[in-house]
Amino acid sequence: MARWIRFDHQGQIKFGTLDGDTIHVHEGRVFENPTATGEQLDLASVHPLTPTDASKMICLWNNLKTLGAKLGLATPAEPLYFIKSSTAYLADRGTIRKPRSYDGKVIFEGEIGVVIGTTCQGVTEHDAPNYVFGYTCVNDVTAVDLLNKDESFTQWTRAKSFDTFGVFGPVVATGLNPETLVIKTHLNGTERQNYPVTDMIFSPFRLVSIISKDMTLLPGDVIACGTNVGVGSMQPGSTVEVTIDGIGTLSNRYE
Amino acid sequence: MARWIRFDHQGQIKFGTLDGDTIHVHEGRVFENPTATGEQLDLASVHPLTPTDASKMICLWNNLKTLGAKLGLATPAEPLYFIKSSTAYLADRGTIRKPRSYDGKVIFEGEIGVVIGTTCQGVTEHDAPNYVFGYTCVNDVTAVDLLNKDESFTQWTRAKSFDTFGVFGPVVATGLNPETLVIKTHLNGTERQNYPVTDMIFSPFRLVSIISKDMTLLPGDVIACGTNVGVGSMQPGSTVEVTIDGIGTLSNRYE
Repeated sequence: MARWIRFDHQGQIKFGTLDGDTIHVHEGRVFENPTATGEQLDLASVHPLTPTDASKMICLWNNLKTLGAKLGLATPAEPLYFIKSSTAYLADRGTIRKPRSYDGKVIFEGEIGVVIGTTCQGVTEHDAPNYVFGYTCVNDVTAVDLLNKDESFTQWTRAKSFDTFGVFGPVVATGLNPETLVIKTHLNGTERQNYPVTDMIFSPFRLVSIISKDMTLLPGDVIACGTNVGVGSMQPGSTVEVTIDGIGTLSNRYE
Repeated sequence: MARWIRFDHQGQIKFGTLDGDTIHVHEGRVFENPTATGEQLDLASVHPLTPTDASKMICLWNNLKTLGAKLGLATPAEPLYFIKSSTAYLADRGTIRKPRSYDGKVIFEGEIGVVIGTTCQGVTEHDAPNYVFGYTCVNDVTAVDLLNKDESFTQWTRAKSFDTFGVFGPVVATGLNPETLVIKTHLNGTERQNYPVTDMIFSPFRLVSIISKDMTLLPGDVIACGTNVGVGSMQPGSTVEVTIDGIGTLSNRYE
């Protein structure tokens, strides 16, 4: 069990394990048994990056039973998902920016992200854990008024892909049993979301299995498992924190 | 005016200009005035790769007037698009594979792709040409029966993102005026699509301008501008060729 962080230190991109506020720098590839260099850094002295350089971030819609029931949605027969642009990625402590080209509501969506560790094609649910590196916190920021602005085409990709709208981190935590995890979201210090992974329609391992039959999943790819009741608007100056015990807190200001 | 090709030669990824069947190998970055090494290779001796390693492939829906009219679609007020997974990319001469997890119709969609050359954020239509590197042929392969399989969520990303479904190449051609170009698609040697860029609702430069206000476009990114009338099914053993004069022919077999 470890918490892997990626960061910029004096212009160099490095990674390591985070223990309290101390980073133990490693070398090699994070997914391939990297080795500790002996260098230790204080968390406050580095600039956090997203914990992986994901080739894709796949985001689920309607995957939480409680939210689906509240909205009166049918239970989907298969996972329903879209891809968020990689130019939207934002790390812990980064500032989520209001788009210049959009004046509507911008909402937070606290989620758990599954991080792939090994190239994965058509795996069974039973074998899926072998392809998962770990878990991270996700804030799937959404320009919600765009979704249904056009009657003929729901604009999932656009509403979710503005620069800084793909927030994940602060670390990828390994060695966790996802079925035990709980996602909590705070807006300006007030709890707004609190739900367990067990409320998912498709569990993390089922998602990895089913999606890997559609497309190859690569090390570092993130599957954001969908959100639940309690999402809401951010106002300039708002701070959103997504917390999952065992992973940590993903904290971002919105401006 | 040049036709830039990227390829694998004896295990090394290289790029250069294509003149007839002769490749003039270059070094540096393709977008930053690379220099000729003097090495020349025969096209038949190399394994073609997609002409760029795109961080994203943005694909338009309902952007051609003739197809929109035929389907009775309203003219969209803004470009409507989704992102195709990068694991779907396939080069010229590569084999498009029938998904193992899907038994329905698989269709070809011949399109033109705009290839970005310079990082691009919020540019005007007037300035957009300065950010475009060139143009390529696209076959936006689609597992069409998935699109509306779920009533509540149109599965654009999934239907378009199976491995080998994001076909582009054979080159990126520079120095072309896109408004003069014509896209032709042949299925097993028979012409099925033949339409001009001028039939687009949003022209290539308008697309670059508008989409760059939503998200940062990076060098190598591809905007597939949408397809027109004449799309159809492929059967195992089919060959699809997308041809644009000045760029060349993108030829792929389906199995």
